[in-house]
Amino acid sequence: MKVTLAIHGGAGNILKKNMAPERIAAYEKALAETLHAAYDLLKRGGSALDAVEQAVCLLEDCPLFNAGRGAVLNALGEHEMDASMMDGKSGAAGAVTMVQQIKNPISLARAVMEKTPHVFIGGQGAEDFARSIGMPLMDKTYFHDEYRYRQWEKLRHTTTVSLDHNVSGNEKKFGTVGAVAFDAQGNLAAATSTGGMMNKMKGRIGDSPLIGVATYANNESCAISCTGHGEIFIKQVVAYDIHCLMQYKGMSLREACNFVVNQKLVQVKGEGGLIAIDKNGEVEIVFNTPGMFRAMKTAAKEAVAIFR
Amino acid sequence: MKVTLAIHGGAGNILKKNMAPERIAAYEKALAETLHAAYDLLKRGGSALDAVEQAVCLLEDCPLFNAGRGAVLNALGEHEMDASMMDGKSGAAGAVTMVQQIKNPISLARAVMEKTPHVFIGGQGAEDFARSIGMPLMDKTYFHDEYRYRQWEKLRHTTTVSLDHNVSGNEKKFGTVGAVAFDAQGNLAAATSTGGMMNKMKGRIGDSPLIGVATYANNESCAISCTGHGEIFIKQVVAYDIHCLMQYKGMSLREACNFVVNQKLVQVKGEGGLIAIDKNGEVEIVFNTPGMFRAMKTAAKEAVAIFR
Repeated sequence: MKVTLAIHGGAGNILKKNMAPERIAAYEKALAETLHAAYDLLKRGGSALDAVEQAVCLLEDCPLFNAGRGAVLNALGEHEMDASMMDGKSGAAGAVTMVQQIKNPISLARAVMEKTPHVFIGGQGAEDFARSIGMPLMDKTYFHDEYRYRQWEKLRHTTTVSLDHNVSGNEKKFGTVGAVAFDAQGNLAAATSTGGMMNKMKGRIGDSPLIGVATYANNESCAISCTGHGEIFIKQVVAYDIHCLMQYKGMSLREACNFVVNQKLVQVKGEGGLIAIDKNGEVEIVFNTPGMFRAMKTAAKEAVAIFR
Repeated sequence: MKVTLAIHGGAGNILKKNMAPERIAAYEKALAETLHAAYDLLKRGGSALDAVEQAVCLLEDCPLFNAGRGAVLNALGEHEMDASMMDGKSGAAGAVTMVQQIKNPISLARAVMEKTPHVFIGGQGAEDFARSIGMPLMDKTYFHDEYRYRQWEKLRHTTTVSLDHNVSGNEKKFGTVGAVAFDAQGNLAAATSTGGMMNKMKGRIGDSPLIGVATYANNESCAISCTGHGEIFIKQVVAYDIHCLMQYKGMSLREACNFVVNQKLVQVKGEGGLIAIDKNGEVEIVFNTPGMFRAMKTAAKEAVAIFR
């Protein structure tokens, strides 16, 4: 019974010299705990869909990552979160954008997928839907984090938008969180969640909630979750591009990921990376930035890493 | 100096027997006027980007079509409009979603592309941005249409969502409007705009504002604007799929459009169609529904049509 899991917590200019050892340890611990919890779920026969949801919920709940509780602030000093999920078995998908009071945006994305005729719901409508299905809305103080607030204060009177990792030489954590899984039934699933770019315009929607861009899963090819400069990822339709390179050009997952991340994205200065699993359960983690918070586990191998 | 233009006003269960002759004539007149205005712009040396914007603005201003002034109503009886645009020359793109008071959402999508670091902005943030660049916001009465209101009243207490063309045997106009153009410099552009599905949940985002789904343009392959059942189009990443079939599998535009619309979409019950132009200026219009409001013009040919 082969199962496979990979998770990420964002890519960027993440350098060891800029991070205190205890922060490195805190990130590694959060990644490892998330990895083990979701992998155990898969080992117990849980579905890929349940595993990616659980992994992303744990990362959303951890203030170290830019998603859920740790979401960065937009130009008005507000949180606006995005998430998306896709089921490789059925091709079903769900996504939410511009939600402000949802503890776990990825679970709301799943509810959109399973309980509405729609794929993508945004803003107040998404929060109204959450309320209608009994999902608790959090007080906005739940998302307040002093570290994020100080980051934002440095940018607030500028027009600079940031993935987090370009902020004045800081440790540059961010981007996004995500998970991809291959379960014992051979099904794939992918999930992505984010607070977006710091100091983004109100209402800015990045790649994270977009099916085919940051999130894609198809049992015939692969499951993918991306992180990086959303605007460029949107125009490159990154996740679906990898599917197409495999399906139409016969590339392996490794070839397709390398071609997209290290050639096509580099040509258009699209910083970022992705995690992927193919239909045989093989994992690829590729990024063109100095670092990426990441972890993966198969029967044969386990790895938790941040730097190159 | 070869230039080419194609426009659409939605696809669906549009049957001659359900439409009065004077309504047919009104649609044909609106399509022809839009076609001629934007084609003349191209003939005078105007850019593909300007031509698709102008065509979509004219269709948005016409209450016959489900976009701009003629937008349908969501479950709360409100208008929520979406639009997107892509420049095949530069790869730049812009999109807006959930705007309620913008006369021409496509022009706001263009402003997002040209005046912000972002690609996609939604809701209040998009309207705040419109105000900040001096774009006038319309009173909501501008969008009120008695015909749309009566359509919605039939659905409002149901959970039915509709492209417009499934409403109780009516004439079933809708979907979306869009344009693709090939200009004298050999550049391609695509634009799409919609009021979405009637009686949709508040905040529902369909395919129309999504780059790679309803709208895609790339001078190396083609420009595409789609219309149809948005949720299915999202999961199929329709527009980018056609690009990939051409680039990675060597299909012609015709082969790619037919494969996607008449095979892949039909297999998943994805009703709809698309207009496309390849890098040589050749036009394809393909739909798997009984009808599609459409028009195209090249140096050699002009056509305005509704039914199969």
